[in-house]
Amino acid sequence: MNAITRRSALIAGSMIAATSAAKGLSSPAKYRRIACEEGYLSPGVLSANTLITIPGVPLITRDGPVADLARQLADVGAERIATMDRDGVDMQLLLLSSPGVQVFPTREAIALARDANDFVSDACRKFPTRLAALAAFAPQDPNAAAREIERGVRSLGLKGGIVNSHTDGAYLDNTRYWPIFEAAEALDVPLYIHPREPAGAMRAVLAGPLTGGAAWAYSVEVGTHLLMLMQAGVFDQFQKLKVVVGHMGEGLPFWLSRLDNRWLEQRVRMTASRTSIPMRRLPSEYMRTNVWITSSGMNELEPLRLSQQVLGIDRVLYATDYPFENQGETIAAVERMPLSPAVKRAFFETNAESLFRLAPAS
Amino acid sequence: MNAITRRSALIAGSMIAATSAAKGLSSPAKYRRIACEEGYLSPGVLSANTLITIPGVPLITRDGPVADLARQLADVGAERIATMDRDGVDMQLLLLSSPGVQVFPTREAIALARDANDFVSDACRKFPTRLAALAAFAPQDPNAAAREIERGVRSLGLKGGIVNSHTDGAYLDNTRYWPIFEAAEALDVPLYIHPREPAGAMRAVLAGPLTGGAAWAYSVEVGTHLLMLMQAGVFDQFQKLKVVVGHMGEGLPFWLSRLDNRWLEQRVRMTASRTSIPMRRLPSEYMRTNVWITSSGMNELEPLRLSQQVLGIDRVLYATDYPFENQGETIAAVERMPLSPAVKRAFFETNAESLFRLAPAS
Repeated sequence: MNAITRRSALIAGSMIAATSAAKGLSSPAKYRRIACEEGYLSPGVLSANTLITIPGVPLITRDGPVADLARQLADVGAERIATMDRDGVDMQLLLLSSPGVQVFPTREAIALARDANDFVSDACRKFPTRLAALAAFAPQDPNAAAREIERGVRSLGLKGGIVNSHTDGAYLDNTRYWPIFEAAEALDVPLYIHPREPAGAMRAVLAGPLTGGAAWAYSVEVGTHLLMLMQAGVFDQFQKLKVVVGHMGEGLPFWLSRLDNRWLEQRVRMTASRTSIPMRRLPSEYMRTNVWITSSGMNELEPLRLSQQVLGIDRVLYATDYPFENQGETIAAVERMPLSPAVKRAFFETNAESLFRLAPAS
Repeated sequence: MNAITRRSALIAGSMIAATSAAKGLSSPAKYRRIACEEGYLSPGVLSANTLITIPGVPLITRDGPVADLARQLADVGAERIATMDRDGVDMQLLLLSSPGVQVFPTREAIALARDANDFVSDACRKFPTRLAALAAFAPQDPNAAAREIERGVRSLGLKGGIVNSHTDGAYLDNTRYWPIFEAAEALDVPLYIHPREPAGAMRAVLAGPLTGGAAWAYSVEVGTHLLMLMQAGVFDQFQKLKVVVGHMGEGLPFWLSRLDNRWLEQRVRMTASRTSIPMRRLPSEYMRTNVWITSSGMNELEPLRLSQQVLGIDRVLYATDYPFENQGETIAAVERMPLSPAVKRAFFETNAESLFRLAPAS
């Protein structure tokens, strides 16, 4: 079946799932369902001749076989709110879809980020109980990026910043980017690190239909990025910095004990060879102090439970990854999980309210 | 504290742990403890001027600060058996330590593999109830590699083959290497894919003290390698091929649902664009049909439980990763886990007996 047929089938499936999810709801609902990594595209980015691709295959074009996906991303109004009503999602936290403005020349990227933030904050003002958003910015100019995060939070009411991993192959462990961390820490808002295709050197290896893209390469990219921040001492320099990663922590919860164990061995060798060590704490300590994770695209019981067990109930937030994942099926799957109402409430509602400082339900 | 002091501290710790582990044992033991990814070095490889390094820091030298590690790897006799007795390990499955012979010129690599297999099979004959081993081979010459696996299994009594991921940056998805799969399938023995530092392109990004080496890069390397085999159709061409990966499946159990989910989407797009798809089944189907995993360096309850749940009790085998991990502490940690005796027996004994065709305890 082709992409459109499959998409239709998914939407049909989602409506069935939404019905069964709605059946499971008591009235009034015990908690709001807040989804924390939901995609949108601003008209500016959408018209800036962007092709967002996965290896070898165009994913989003304005008129290609998955034009419906582009349409879903571009809508931050009635159609989106209707899918949220249908699927049982109370609020979406919107992120400018990957790779955001990071693929454009600096001056254009700065203008596109500014425009996207104006656009999305308008939508949030229109639906204040249904939509919230993070501020896009152009890491290409770190000082301008810091100013745009500040404008987004202070003037537009946005809830933090969103970066799509590397920029021209450079990662935020490079001190040149640290004004971005300084701004996020000073404003006390989280910085969300979202995937994109790995940089050239790694993309050359992760080039296949399974090894590339969302199945594997995206998590390698962001997991690596987060560990780069740790080893560069970012969380020692900015001790109150809050970072969010999606896709159930990009695999890091599974590795937590091994990250600590092998880092301890490595530190012994570095100390013996008098190598300077900017990273002062264990990987697990940063994960439990500076990092929050969302479940985007990974709403399965086993990984969710493991993550809650090793990181704590208060560090794991719900996300769908709309429109790339099926919102209705995802909500229904989570509602079927044998988790206590208190755990579900933390996962769906209170963790997000607290981290992103969302107004409580009236 | 320096490396030797720390190593001594670890050994002291391991003796304490072994005591408590021994206390937890009923007599006679309910199961043999078989450890399935245990390192050794042949005299030939050890003297061939090898430096096994992690990023920037020598790990093994013949006379460096971790000479004790080299000594432990080189011993396949009395000292090793004594540590096994002390720590409660009944049998070790020996693997030529990474990167094995894959860093040498072809002719030298072939000779070193042959020599290593003769050396280790002598040790196994000397301690037939305590030691078993896999056959080293030189992928540099795939036909010679196939012949050496056959000689190792048929003439020397070895239990399968061991490869340390890429060879000169090339992975086994390249059809040039497929005589190796053909031999393993025909002999009905497993092929163990063990980590080494990633190939150049990926190593350039994974170069840091935390992102490089065993904490992260090794699992990216082998996880990617296994997915490369899937997407190349290796398990469709060789449907009875058995592959083993360590370190709790190099993270793939955590990703299982997402691998399927994103692969299904990718397949739709490839079909729409008439791209040829050699991979016929889902990643999870290969994982549950052709792949077994060991727990080396990842003997923590949450990842173990998740892996047993998503792959099945019969696919997860115990390994320590001696001498890189502390054997006594690891055994004690597993014995403390709230797993049923039947699950522990499968994990420690019967899965290994079945997969590697080890003779049952007399």
